[in-house]
Amino acid sequence: MERVTISDYKIETSIDLSKQKSVEDFNLSKKELEKELETTRVQLGELQDRLYAHGKYAVLVCLQGMDTSGKDSLIREVFKDFNARGVVVHSFKVPTELELNHDYLWRHYIALPARGKFAVFNRTHYENVLVTRVHPNYILGENLPSIHTIEDVSSEFWDSRFEQINAFEKSIAENGTLIFKFFLNLSKEEQKNRLLRRLNKPNKNWKFSPGDLKERKLWDIYKDCYQDVINRTSKVHAPWYIIPADNKPAARCIVASILLSELSTYNDIKEPELEPEIKAKISVYKNELENE
Amino acid sequence: MERVTISDYKIETSIDLSKQKSVEDFNLSKKELEKELETTRVQLGELQDRLYAHGKYAVLVCLQGMDTSGKDSLIREVFKDFNARGVVVHSFKVPTELELNHDYLWRHYIALPARGKFAVFNRTHYENVLVTRVHPNYILGENLPSIHTIEDVSSEFWDSRFEQINAFEKSIAENGTLIFKFFLNLSKEEQKNRLLRRLNKPNKNWKFSPGDLKERKLWDIYKDCYQDVINRTSKVHAPWYIIPADNKPAARCIVASILLSELSTYNDIKEPELEPEIKAKISVYKNELENE
Repeated sequence: MERVTISDYKIETSIDLSKQKSVEDFNLSKKELEKELETTRVQLGELQDRLYAHGKYAVLVCLQGMDTSGKDSLIREVFKDFNARGVVVHSFKVPTELELNHDYLWRHYIALPARGKFAVFNRTHYENVLVTRVHPNYILGENLPSIHTIEDVSSEFWDSRFEQINAFEKSIAENGTLIFKFFLNLSKEEQKNRLLRRLNKPNKNWKFSPGDLKERKLWDIYKDCYQDVINRTSKVHAPWYIIPADNKPAARCIVASILLSELSTYNDIKEPELEPEIKAKISVYKNELENE
Repeated sequence: MERVTISDYKIETSIDLSKQKSVEDFNLSKKELEKELETTRVQLGELQDRLYAHGKYAVLVCLQGMDTSGKDSLIREVFKDFNARGVVVHSFKVPTELELNHDYLWRHYIALPARGKFAVFNRTHYENVLVTRVHPNYILGENLPSIHTIEDVSSEFWDSRFEQINAFEKSIAENGTLIFKFFLNLSKEEQKNRLLRRLNKPNKNWKFSPGDLKERKLWDIYKDCYQDVINRTSKVHAPWYIIPADNKPAARCIVASILLSELSTYNDIKEPELEPEIKAKISVYKNELENE
């Protein structure tokens, strides 16, 4: 989608999150935006086929955003034209006992995409410097030998966690994983609308939890944590993109366009060539088949 | 075993591997050494129980060494008094296709020990800067997008691999994994004896492969790579220990003693205390049982 200018979203310097916009519609209607998305995602699906055939890069798509920011439906729409063989979605929930018995990156490391494939992390390893930072008592549940009380969860603790995450991403990037991190930037007003919709429509009720209102009260603290995350971990090899998320069809267009444009810069991503000896004999093989 | 002085083996400064000894017997007979090991490993087994009950630290034991250096039998003997529940041995062989389709640390990350448990890596992630460094053409099989020919496997390539390994170990150490790395230092003469034994004894024949002789010809290159590995990756949180390996019973004693002494310095490793309210009522519970 030509309207999408990557540099409007890609974070390359320190940002003030309160100044980032949550609305964008390109002056297009819902229908027009859906049409745009369709075009982009067909091309993205073709690119995915080439990436699979090439078999050297893996792609990791990280999605973060407040409750109701549209992560699930974005995944449904953006990856619709993918061959299911080549993409895996991992929704990371509250860690299980097995997961808590390993370092916090373990469950994410396991789920990393193989070469030739996409993995989408719906909520990511960044929750370890987001939800646990807003609720530091969760860290006590991680059984870390150095953490005895909540006072031990110091700023040095967070510093080393950021360092660990940056080292993790650098390492997998250097070994062939292309990393894209999207923050779906929703306004507090639009969250209210979406939560009310969940409460008003009986068939949407199941998506609501009283916890949503509790977390909403911590909106500003979450925003500060997100800003810190983005400023400390947006790297050339693993950039953050801030996506205006109040308009869902537009947000999906932007994410799909960014993936398509950024991946298209890797012009080594293509089907492998046949061995010259085999290629030279293509007409021989054709003859053999036609005359059998 | 009091005779073992940790600092004789622990690498804290740059070393010249050719000057490290491969023989040590403490002037003890095989029988006496076995007796010493028995004492040590019973204590190690008890410590393992406490580590399991405590449930916060994980222990990663890394074993490296030339062919026939005694890794397998060391594992068999040193961990004999462990509760099998608390220790897992991973023997890393030639990577599978699934493993090659991920970054080289992936299969090791998956196998990391859970809190309260030991994992023994029989050959480790260090093979990625050892066997592949001696045979850089193996790197071509890893499907890295940046590596097209053997010329791309530059010294910068190895630099970043060392950096990745150091970052990986630092991260898991900071999250509660205690790391011990043992290099079983065998002499070239003793390897000859052991290979001849494999060829002479029909029931040991299966352990021999013609490849062993091929690798033996590369002895000096391997030694240089080992020295580089040890000097670049021995860290306070993940030290290397160089173990004289020509005398197997002595090597086992040294490894067991190092594990026991080093782990004993963590005096927080103990069974968890009962909640005070429960503890205060122990006699009540006893009464209830006795009078039922």
